[in-house]
Amino acid sequence: MKFCSLCGEPVEQLIPAGDNRRRYVCSSCEHIHYQNPKVIVGTLPLYEGKVLLCKRAIEPRKGYWTLPAGFMENQETSLQGALRESLEEAGATVINPAFYRLFDLPHISQVYVFYRGELQDGHYEPGAESSEVALFSEEQIPWDELAFPVVTELLREYFVDRQSGVYPVRSSSIERLIPKA
Amino acid sequence: MKFCSLCGEPVEQLIPAGDNRRRYVCSSCEHIHYQNPKVIVGTLPLYEGKVLLCKRAIEPRKGYWTLPAGFMENQETSLQGALRESLEEAGATVINPAFYRLFDLPHISQVYVFYRGELQDGHYEPGAESSEVALFSEEQIPWDELAFPVVTELLREYFVDRQSGVYPVRSSSIERLIPKA
Ligand SMILES: [Zn+2]
Ligand SMILES: [Zn+2]
Repeated sequence: MKFCSLCGEPVEQLIPAGDNRRRYVCSSCEHIHYQNPKVIVGTLPLYEGKVLLCKRAIEPRKGYWTLPAGFMENQETSLQGALRESLEEAGATVINPAFYRLFDLPHISQVYVFYRGELQDGHYEPGAESSEVALFSEEQIPWDELAFPVVTELLREYFVDRQSGVYPVRSSSIERLIPKA
Repeated sequence: MKFCSLCGEPVEQLIPAGDNRRRYVCSSCEHIHYQNPKVIVGTLPLYEGKVLLCKRAIEPRKGYWTLPAGFMENQETSLQGALRESLEEAGATVINPAFYRLFDLPHISQVYVFYRGELQDGHYEPGAESSEVALFSEEQIPWDELAFPVVTELLREYFVDRQSGVYPVRSSSIERLIPKA
């Protein structure tokens, strides 16, 4: 950030009175431009014991498999966003959703919120950001080709939870986003 | 938003190619300035069967009681933010935290994340944004003087959950922020 989005004059970095963090503050209108974490919302779509995954058609991690997820938009709920992303990226209508997982990724200032649900009619098709969408049984999961640690962790937890039929809602942080090559 | 924070030139509102929402786009460098929901993190601090509440020293809802909570910062986890706010607003060190609640407030593009925990040593003191901090038993809760619907809802749920000793993690949306006068 170099300029004030309200008046167009240069911003400077300083600690405002009563604050304890450096912020971008306008040199002219004195507006404080706070920067905050972004929320990414997604689903774990399930159908006849299989999990729906999307092969990424875009960077980062193009060609790797992920769950349908994307940035939450203003004026929507996390659930609405998760269902919207599932439709956009995988042509998937997810029904009977249940809150399942919160991940913090502090190194990139992101919070992931996942809902578990059923893939209606087993129907799916790739959206603009996916080159391929497919259902995978536990044995078929491409563990070495998953796009992000949050996907790996969520799938691991799901297959454990499924054995007991109990799905506790968890919150934890993951310190890395993309596995080292 | 009127000006590009990267180059200082005017922004215009349009739907970028491949998108389906109006965004602020720079007329000069063409950068798309996305706007996304903000996360508010807080705690439900408990001590000897009582709940810690803070009387707001600032607007909105000055003079009304709330739980310690505030905007999540970049580079921290939701839990770290919740514990930080508890210390800043209530001088409260919250220990043994457990994830408890996600609220969506789509009309103001906010997501609340609450952790339940114990107030260490029963110690508290008002921070800069609180005029008073106090412990309340269930019978003492000032239901008509609570600052925000998320606080009312979380306290209601907590006192129900406490009867069974089971604290399921919930997610739901609340469509209003401040009660009508
Ligand atoms: Zn300005
Ligand atoms: Zn620009």
